[in-house]
Amino acid sequence: MSTDEQASHPWNLESPLSAVPAAVDTQLQKYLQQSQQEFSHINPLVDGAIAVLRDFIVNGGKRVRPTFAWAGIRAALEGGGGSLDALCGIGMDAPSSAPAELSAHSTAVLNALSSFEFIQACALIHDDIIDRSDTRRGFPTAHRTFESRHRERGWLGSSQHYGVSQAILIGDLAFAWADDLYNGSGLSINALHRARPAWRAMRTEVIAGQILDIAVEANGSEDVADSFAVIKYKTASYTVARPLHIGAALAGAGERTVNMLRNVGQDIGEAFQLRDDQLGVFGDPEVTGKPSGDDLRTGKRTTLINEALRRGDAAQATALRKGLGKGEESTEADIERLRDIIHDTGAQAEVEKLIEARTQRAIESLRAGGLGADITTELTQLAEKLTHRRF
Amino acid sequence: MSTDEQASHPWNLESPLSAVPAAVDTQLQKYLQQSQQEFSHINPLVDGAIAVLRDFIVNGGKRVRPTFAWAGIRAALEGGGGSLDALCGIGMDAPSSAPAELSAHSTAVLNALSSFEFIQACALIHDDIIDRSDTRRGFPTAHRTFESRHRERGWLGSSQHYGVSQAILIGDLAFAWADDLYNGSGLSINALHRARPAWRAMRTEVIAGQILDIAVEANGSEDVADSFAVIKYKTASYTVARPLHIGAALAGAGERTVNMLRNVGQDIGEAFQLRDDQLGVFGDPEVTGKPSGDDLRTGKRTTLINEALRRGDAAQATALRKGLGKGEESTEADIERLRDIIHDTGAQAEVEKLIEARTQRAIESLRAGGLGADITTELTQLAEKLTHRRF
Repeated sequence: MSTDEQASHPWNLESPLSAVPAAVDTQLQKYLQQSQQEFSHINPLVDGAIAVLRDFIVNGGKRVRPTFAWAGIRAALEGGGGSLDALCGIGMDAPSSAPAELSAHSTAVLNALSSFEFIQACALIHDDIIDRSDTRRGFPTAHRTFESRHRERGWLGSSQHYGVSQAILIGDLAFAWADDLYNGSGLSINALHRARPAWRAMRTEVIAGQILDIAVEANGSEDVADSFAVIKYKTASYTVARPLHIGAALAGAGERTVNMLRNVGQDIGEAFQLRDDQLGVFGDPEVTGKPSGDDLRTGKRTTLINEALRRGDAAQATALRKGLGKGEESTEADIERLRDIIHDTGAQAEVEKLIEARTQRAIESLRAGGLGADITTELTQLAEKLTHRRF
Repeated sequence: MSTDEQASHPWNLESPLSAVPAAVDTQLQKYLQQSQQEFSHINPLVDGAIAVLRDFIVNGGKRVRPTFAWAGIRAALEGGGGSLDALCGIGMDAPSSAPAELSAHSTAVLNALSSFEFIQACALIHDDIIDRSDTRRGFPTAHRTFESRHRERGWLGSSQHYGVSQAILIGDLAFAWADDLYNGSGLSINALHRARPAWRAMRTEVIAGQILDIAVEANGSEDVADSFAVIKYKTASYTVARPLHIGAALAGAGERTVNMLRNVGQDIGEAFQLRDDQLGVFGDPEVTGKPSGDDLRTGKRTTLINEALRRGDAAQATALRKGLGKGEESTEADIERLRDIIHDTGAQAEVEKLIEARTQRAIESLRAGGLGADITTELTQLAEKLTHRRF
């Protein structure tokens, strides 16, 4: 491949994990543009709604799920018992002699990786309605965008309800297109067939995790088992374990590798969310970009908070319950007092221990996993980065 | 096959269109039970939410989309250039000598047909949120069911918002399972591949139609072109044309048959919705089960109403606009006056003419379509029934 071709096709089947976000960004833009064109005949009003989805998707995101899916594929290919033939089907026997084919296969992989971002778009757009969030990544949320348009144009009826309604629908559209992009990716039919149970599980688990999240918030549960179940399905499975699983299954990894990656993914994912719990209480607002003591102000019963309530004596628990969920009412001193209680109960240290244990277990499993040096190193670094992050 | 076997497997690859609803009902129950079991380990609260989806799906519906999809398959098989081999793949060469195989293929077809009802469940559950509907088929809508549970249990936060949130999520779950059931139906991989563009178009079009519907309601459009575009995508494509198209593509119909069925489906679907417009104004509440002059009371700008506004003189249009959307305020005499105006503008007769022209064109195309006598007759009868119905 010449330098020119590399410049226009920077993504290939040897790309490192770190190359995923930029490559996925490009592919998403392309797919969105094509799809918008494909359905532009329906009506300009529909076109305008699709544009909101497009802006939402291209305006950032760390592309974590595509990255783990690529890690799963590479793990399968680099010592995990998989093959390019299993992934891409016929035509992969002699990739070196067929650069055009190779490029088609690279694109197929990139399509499949990008499809995870459409599921994420649906999840976030619908979550933002449920959480009544006004902004996401510094931009108005989808339902607020539709609401503003309605208001600016002086349209009939409730602007607020109109915003929610259109956001429900473009979330649905994103979910439909996730399946279209994934199943029409160009990956081999056998690959898609092998990964079908994992694809099904991922989508069901993230929805189930969210159903559970709002149910335990509503029933006032302070049970660590409940908050942990939310972590398990809404974050760990969906964000790490299943993307790794799907990638590995697509590329035909052996059962031992698949199981190892799923366990590693579950550990990394749980540690990732527990880190989020810690940052939600102890994080530096200058670094996280979120308000100081964000989870304390919202009063969300995270695993960290529930652990503190469980461990605290009666006075500590009472003080915590009284101080949580006060929003802007809490002064910085109030927040600091709540932090001290959580620290004093030993919950902060316990959660830190849980994070460390999971991260270490994941890294040891990876090192003993028999995969190639490159993917082992890259995945280990990613695990460290996600679980030790400060934002 | 013995009589006993027939009783326990009443569905087979020669079943008439009229057999679809009962067969789909049974298959949906089975799939929902299996799926509920498959994810029962997550949490009883999730199980309870899935139960709401199950009740929603099994509590009726006419199974119109599965019926048209089966019509598309049969059209392909009965003179349309398709084959059982195209539909079900290897193993269909000698069906008569392999009753076990035949049963597996029947099940695969039934899975694919049933999957349309999961899309419909998502569409209806989300539509009911958007339309703020309290009941559906005589039962509380999904968001109202979750809302009641929340209230009865004295849970925290807004019962209304909780209901909407959980209903958004189980609608999403239904949408995910539609794809799972369809792509995992057991139909041949080539069949699914052939039908992919139609499957994509159907899902995008129904969402786009709904986006358009609420946008033109909000912007106050009284343009016949706008209300007709909603009919075209939200109803005709989604309910008739695309299910026929998907069925035909799955079974490998020739291009001529596919195009004929798509046109026929578009005509039947448009006539079906225009009949709905007529019944919404002129229908007998004793027969329709809906309030007298339902569309007049809601003030929805249907094609019939827009046609009346377009044709009416200034006095008629003013009287119409003034009288529409008054809900319970309108007396039976008010409704009767509005009906008279719509009749006098010629809109009623014009819409009747549109229905008749579409129905006749569809029937003529079917008769000239070169398909077998059975499917031609059954589809013709179905077209007549749907477009001449009184409820």
